[in-house]
Amino acid sequence: MTLLDSHTFPADLTRLNSSALTALAAELRALMIEVVGKNGGHLASSLGVVELTLALHRVFDFRRDALVFDVGHQCYAHKILTGRRDRFSTLRQMGGLSGFPNAAESPYDYFTSGHASASVAAAAGWAAAAKIRGEARQAVAVIGDGSLGGGLAFEAMNHAGQAGLDLLVVLNDNEMSIGKTVGAFAAYLEQIRARPDATRLRQLLRRFLRGVPLVGDALVRAQEHLLNLVKNPAGAFFQAMNFRYFGPFDGHDIPQLLATLTKLKNLSGPRLLHVITEKGRGFSAAAADPELFHSAAPFATGNDVARLLPAAKITLAPTSTTYTDIFGATLCAMAAENPRLVAITAAMTAGAGLKNFAAKFPDRFYDVGIAESYAVTLAAGLARGGMLPVVGVYSTFLQRAYDQIFHDVLLQKNLPLILAIDRAGLVGNDGPTHHGAFDISYLRHFPDIVLLAPRDGDEFATMLRWAANSGKTCAIRYPRGAAPERGLLPFATAPLTLGRGEKLRDDHGRGDGALVAYGRLVAPAFAAAEKLAARGKNFAVYNARFAKPLDEEMLRAAAATGRILTLEDNAAAGGFGSAVAEFLAARHIVCRLQMLGIPDRFIEGATVAQLDRQLGFNVEGITRAAQGE
Amino acid sequence: MTLLDSHTFPADLTRLNSSALTALAAELRALMIEVVGKNGGHLASSLGVVELTLALHRVFDFRRDALVFDVGHQCYAHKILTGRRDRFSTLRQMGGLSGFPNAAESPYDYFTSGHASASVAAAAGWAAAAKIRGEARQAVAVIGDGSLGGGLAFEAMNHAGQAGLDLLVVLNDNEMSIGKTVGAFAAYLEQIRARPDATRLRQLLRRFLRGVPLVGDALVRAQEHLLNLVKNPAGAFFQAMNFRYFGPFDGHDIPQLLATLTKLKNLSGPRLLHVITEKGRGFSAAAADPELFHSAAPFATGNDVARLLPAAKITLAPTSTTYTDIFGATLCAMAAENPRLVAITAAMTAGAGLKNFAAKFPDRFYDVGIAESYAVTLAAGLARGGMLPVVGVYSTFLQRAYDQIFHDVLLQKNLPLILAIDRAGLVGNDGPTHHGAFDISYLRHFPDIVLLAPRDGDEFATMLRWAANSGKTCAIRYPRGAAPERGLLPFATAPLTLGRGEKLRDDHGRGDGALVAYGRLVAPAFAAAEKLAARGKNFAVYNARFAKPLDEEMLRAAAATGRILTLEDNAAAGGFGSAVAEFLAARHIVCRLQMLGIPDRFIEGATVAQLDRQLGFNVEGITRAAQGE
Repeated sequence: MTLLDSHTFPADLTRLNSSALTALAAELRALMIEVVGKNGGHLASSLGVVELTLALHRVFDFRRDALVFDVGHQCYAHKILTGRRDRFSTLRQMGGLSGFPNAAESPYDYFTSGHASASVAAAAGWAAAAKIRGEARQAVAVIGDGSLGGGLAFEAMNHAGQAGLDLLVVLNDNEMSIGKTVGAFAAYLEQIRARPDATRLRQLLRRFLRGVPLVGDALVRAQEHLLNLVKNPAGAFFQAMNFRYFGPFDGHDIPQLLATLTKLKNLSGPRLLHVITEKGRGFSAAAADPELFHSAAPFATGNDVARLLPAAKITLAPTSTTYTDIFGATLCAMAAENPRLVAITAAMTAGAGLKNFAAKFPDRFYDVGIAESYAVTLAAGLARGGMLPVVGVYSTFLQRAYDQIFHDVLLQKNLPLILAIDRAGLVGNDGPTHHGAFDISYLRHFPDIVLLAPRDGDEFATMLRWAANSGKTCAIRYPRGAAPERGLLPFATAPLTLGRGEKLRDDHGRGDGALVAYGRLVAPAFAAAEKLAARGKNFAVYNARFAKPLDEEMLRAAAATGRILTLEDNAAAGGFGSAVAEFLAARHIVCRLQMLGIPDRFIEGATVAQLDRQLGFNVEGITRAAQGE
Repeated sequence: MTLLDSHTFPADLTRLNSSALTALAAELRALMIEVVGKNGGHLASSLGVVELTLALHRVFDFRRDALVFDVGHQCYAHKILTGRRDRFSTLRQMGGLSGFPNAAESPYDYFTSGHASASVAAAAGWAAAAKIRGEARQAVAVIGDGSLGGGLAFEAMNHAGQAGLDLLVVLNDNEMSIGKTVGAFAAYLEQIRARPDATRLRQLLRRFLRGVPLVGDALVRAQEHLLNLVKNPAGAFFQAMNFRYFGPFDGHDIPQLLATLTKLKNLSGPRLLHVITEKGRGFSAAAADPELFHSAAPFATGNDVARLLPAAKITLAPTSTTYTDIFGATLCAMAAENPRLVAITAAMTAGAGLKNFAAKFPDRFYDVGIAESYAVTLAAGLARGGMLPVVGVYSTFLQRAYDQIFHDVLLQKNLPLILAIDRAGLVGNDGPTHHGAFDISYLRHFPDIVLLAPRDGDEFATMLRWAANSGKTCAIRYPRGAAPERGLLPFATAPLTLGRGEKLRDDHGRGDGALVAYGRLVAPAFAAAEKLAARGKNFAVYNARFAKPLDEEMLRAAAATGRILTLEDNAAAGGFGSAVAEFLAARHIVCRLQMLGIPDRFIEGATVAQLDRQLGFNVEGITRAAQGE
């Protein structure tokens, strides 16, 4: 009988001693590895914080105190311990547990999340509310060293520190974002980690300072200042933010964590606890390659997962050529030809397909850490300096750079620059925080931006090259996962012209309507039209290619059929179809218009195929929509 | 003959000695005060950096080096010195000089700006480009202590520091954002400023440390660490970012600035120069109240501006009751009744109308500094903690919080919270960086948000109270400046219902069409309809009130006239009219639709009345549009 079987958590945590907690940690790890091995998920991060999670739940009461996990992908032990063990096998499945904290799922999930660097701010808000209400509730934010480099986290510490909020920030320092954490601040943490115990030196120094003859108030104050610094030189940065610094401690040492957290719970004001953890802890394959296991596809672990198999036994599911692969390969080829090309990523070197680029062109590659806002402004500065920057970024995370696209890029007028927007549209099991549902809507109202989306991998490569030569600010959106196989669309890529779409199928003057698709839905739209033709209904099919500027000639031709169905893997509100609606109104063109896109609600996680079925983005759904059903 | 008359700058700066530069500084100040006295503008900031600007242009060559002013409102001396003295009287006028750096205006304006905290990132991009190209160009960012608290600035220093970019950041420390700078970091700078000269103590300490018997490598390293800290304890924060710290120096001491900048120019790597300046320097009224003179309306200075008149002689132009005033007064009244109400601003206490609120309810007021992203996430945390937060923020600056609205507010589901979006629509002379042109477009595609805009001041107060009781996430947009006088719209405010508009005028079954206006354009739309009625054309007029959810019944009634003209002070792309277009398409309603909004280009600065004329937002323009002209 396991501890998980025989106890009710988190309440029973207080009944377990340190060695029982260690055993419980092993049970939690085994369960996580088993489920993620089947479902895929964020394994390495969750494995790294098992002891920390146990200690936090043992010391605090998160029915009344608030626990905010930054990003949230490290929440698996927390979920198992807070009444969701029975449903844990449904992790990241349609209708199952979210892979991230979700306030709708449990009162223990204070804050729904998925994006980085927000935890300190959210916890500060809770602490401010408790202060106003006069309640002695605790607010705890658990944030990785990578996330702490995000501007929002800095803004939060800067304010919470000055406001003196009762807030505990646990810096979960594993030296990783998804890849290795970068930035000066990470180097500074490295220094702290490497710091020898300076206790003896500090004692000597204090004795010395007391002996210095102090003439005048100025020198007394100078001495105080130095003493403060010497008191804990490691935390100078956090002390500048008015946070009391504690650490660094071993984040896997349960007795020490319990003792330290108990002490910290009884202090007030802004506190920072620095713990060192190992990402992928307890699972050799994940610890050896935490980047690979950051967000792992399902993997085979053999029959006895509890034994924590060695790396050699792990096989990851094979994948076909993805848009991300094409991006990386095309960009390398382009960089070899063009010495002005620079690639930028925000902590997504592998995810954005830039590993080879980084290795081949280290002088023209910047991983700026989890800092999308900065990535875009850096690109703007590079473009002003005569380079051709390409920012490889996920659609949902580019939301962090909305104002930078407006102010630092577009207002500069005609900065040649490419936003390569990966994971545009539905991304699958990661759910609403990660779907790239809005990029067309949040970009197309800006003047002077060119928006593109390819129908397949070959067209994507063509678009990248076209954008690089356009002299314009271009944003190319492309979906997560495999690019359609050749043959699905029996057309070679035609050369690109600014603002011109492509006719893939004629309606043969039969006037049943026109399907105007943008990006990923071009292929199923074409298949649907073929299917309908077999039933005697003839639809023209257009590949829009550009959401901005629109192809007016194409839209006039489409409207001439009397009926347009727009198709896009983006919110229908403000998206491509909306732009077509504006165009028709502005030109006084009378035409029945139907818009298929993501409806006006947050889309929960499921496989992309499941979601396509649900939203009518597959051939069947498009066939129905074309028939006006 | 003045120095400005007899010299060509910036080239001739090298011919002037320090006392001549001091005389030139006085001439620059006199010219700025004269022009801003007539045109209005950002006086206090520009007065504070005259000596710094002179010194920078004397030491660097900004035809090849890049100078980036953060925000940019402190650029007046820079503009006068770089070939724009003759046009300086056109500052902030239609067709004249922009009040901010503008790359289209001069090759000396490296970066068009207006939003805070972007300068270090933009300069870092330039430095990175120079590095890749192997060119010895310098990049200089001038950033205020307030702007340095923005997350983007932190992200930039974190990256530029680690990357070792050749970048000089000049921290222009005037203890002010627009109001007093807040945040722990500001308090830290205060400590540095207050720091006595610790030279003697440092010498003693160094001698002492050298005398400590060192046993083992660990102690040697500890000693090195302490020595580094002691070397310059003031800059510990910046050193953690891998910036070499120099300062603090007097930012008005020309000889010292010249010597220091010359030294710094010849160093490489990331450097930070900390100078202390006085906002409003040299103009007693502005120095005494730099917040009032941050963005001053035109003021009378008497005949002899060069004499720098005392504060008593200054009179600011009177203003009528603004939406901002109504916001402040209504919020105070609401807070008196509702102990859960909390107000938040991002360095805009006065600008957002919250001075009285801050004084009356200090425990429920947060000025978080220039950190809009954080302001919104803090509000989300407060709402989760049971409070009712109201964020008072300008439309253009809320762009910084786009992702936070999505992730930290809306994804939490039904957080009661109000975004009070001031300066929505055209703001006048501040130009494209400051127009609130996009908020409808960047918010309406998000699920679960309620969008409102009032037709007048009274309806605005009603909307605030309604939103506070709605239990929903509401965003209310309202324009800069005076709320329409009572009588302009002869209608008392009707009670609000979610998603219901208001019919102000019937078309008497004549079918000429319906004007559906949202926000500020309701009043001129009504006036236009009255004018048209006198010519025998009858238009229905609707006050939409909500851009989300839309009033379907109202829109069906409007469509029944056969023709709808939507009117809004927001980008036509993706805005309110676009939402109406989507609605009509989704409901298969055939109706001619015309959309009046901000066209698809950046709108330069001019008075709102001039811009209204230009864009057809006034009664005449709407009359023409209604007639299909």
